[in-house]
Amino acid sequence: MSRFAEPMAQLIDQLKKLPGVGSKSAQRLAFHILRSSDEDAELLSAAIRDVKARLHLCSTCNNITDVDPCVYCASATRNQRLVCVVEEPTNIASIEKTRHYNGVYHVLHGSLSPLHGVGPEHLRISNLTRRIDRGDVDEIILATNPTVEGEATAVYISGLVKKLRNPVKVTRIATGIPAGSDIEYADEVSMQKAIEGRREL
Amino acid sequence: MSRFAEPMAQLIDQLKKLPGVGSKSAQRLAFHILRSSDEDAELLSAAIRDVKARLHLCSTCNNITDVDPCVYCASATRNQRLVCVVEEPTNIASIEKTRHYNGVYHVLHGSLSPLHGVGPEHLRISNLTRRIDRGDVDEIILATNPTVEGEATAVYISGLVKKLRNPVKVTRIATGIPAGSDIEYADEVSMQKAIEGRREL
Repeated sequence: MSRFAEPMAQLIDQLKKLPGVGSKSAQRLAFHILRSSDEDAELLSAAIRDVKARLHLCSTCNNITDVDPCVYCASATRNQRLVCVVEEPTNIASIEKTRHYNGVYHVLHGSLSPLHGVGPEHLRISNLTRRIDRGDVDEIILATNPTVEGEATAVYISGLVKKLRNPVKVTRIATGIPAGSDIEYADEVSMQKAIEGRREL
Repeated sequence: MSRFAEPMAQLIDQLKKLPGVGSKSAQRLAFHILRSSDEDAELLSAAIRDVKARLHLCSTCNNITDVDPCVYCASATRNQRLVCVVEEPTNIASIEKTRHYNGVYHVLHGSLSPLHGVGPEHLRISNLTRRIDRGDVDEIILATNPTVEGEATAVYISGLVKKLRNPVKVTRIATGIPAGSDIEYADEVSMQKAIEGRREL
């Protein structure tokens, strides 16, 4: 005898596929959905359908968008000649939160990781090189993660861009100890990068 | 400028309503759903609709079910005269997991909690007393939680049942130190209950 009625078991199974959701969490979420108002359940169900139906990648920058070009690439107030290269669409939110960046983006949808079989052919780079080749770009900022994979990706793209007909300025975001932290607790790699990246005052 | 395309922002908002899901988790789940196959997203969306559309409470025991009476109340191999009273439908799963209970259930959908304004009128008790009055029950096992609220609920129902025309045997599940645990680490209340509830060997 199944422990839950079939629609409940089905919802729990589907919720378990989500990252970080195990059996117990799925059960808790499913009972929450069951107890929520009809309207809330319908809104959630429709929202899931909508992201799949209405979202696609921006043809210019690969950001996830419901319009093409995306809001950043279509913006008249942004510097369209300054391109920040990030690994994932979520990274854009982190940069926008600073409210200090006024350029546009390019999303790679991944980073080089030979161990996981991710080579340059798995990243979305071609529309970036086309933009540069067309002379649409003054500078690219490589904002891939300061991890082994992110650094390798930055080095790879930097090399690729320098070989283009129209080479542009290539910069890398600074790695160092985080603002507001205590040097006493900084990890050695961040501290080393902070010293290497020191600036004159 | 919104940081996410509108369908994405909408999905994140809806996911944030779930228990234990904050902004960051909602964002991660939403991007997971976006990246998952069309089929998986559709299954999840449909499953959410289905639990709201197809599930209701069993008229006999208040368990959540897609058929009425529920599988337990309709079972010919279960002892329909032994009723285990639980607070929530999820508790049934915990008891079924033991594979040692062959009676049926009654779900209260809550426990008495004067502090939170939950009185007897908020619990689903009437169909239990009707079952007892009809002479359909030999014994009720009170399996509410061993908390202040659960104990109060057990005492209340026990008193209620004893005043009925057809009083039945009323038992309470044992409270004590958990199986496989070490007495050294038992909390004092569990230890006290374990001593109070000692049995002759």
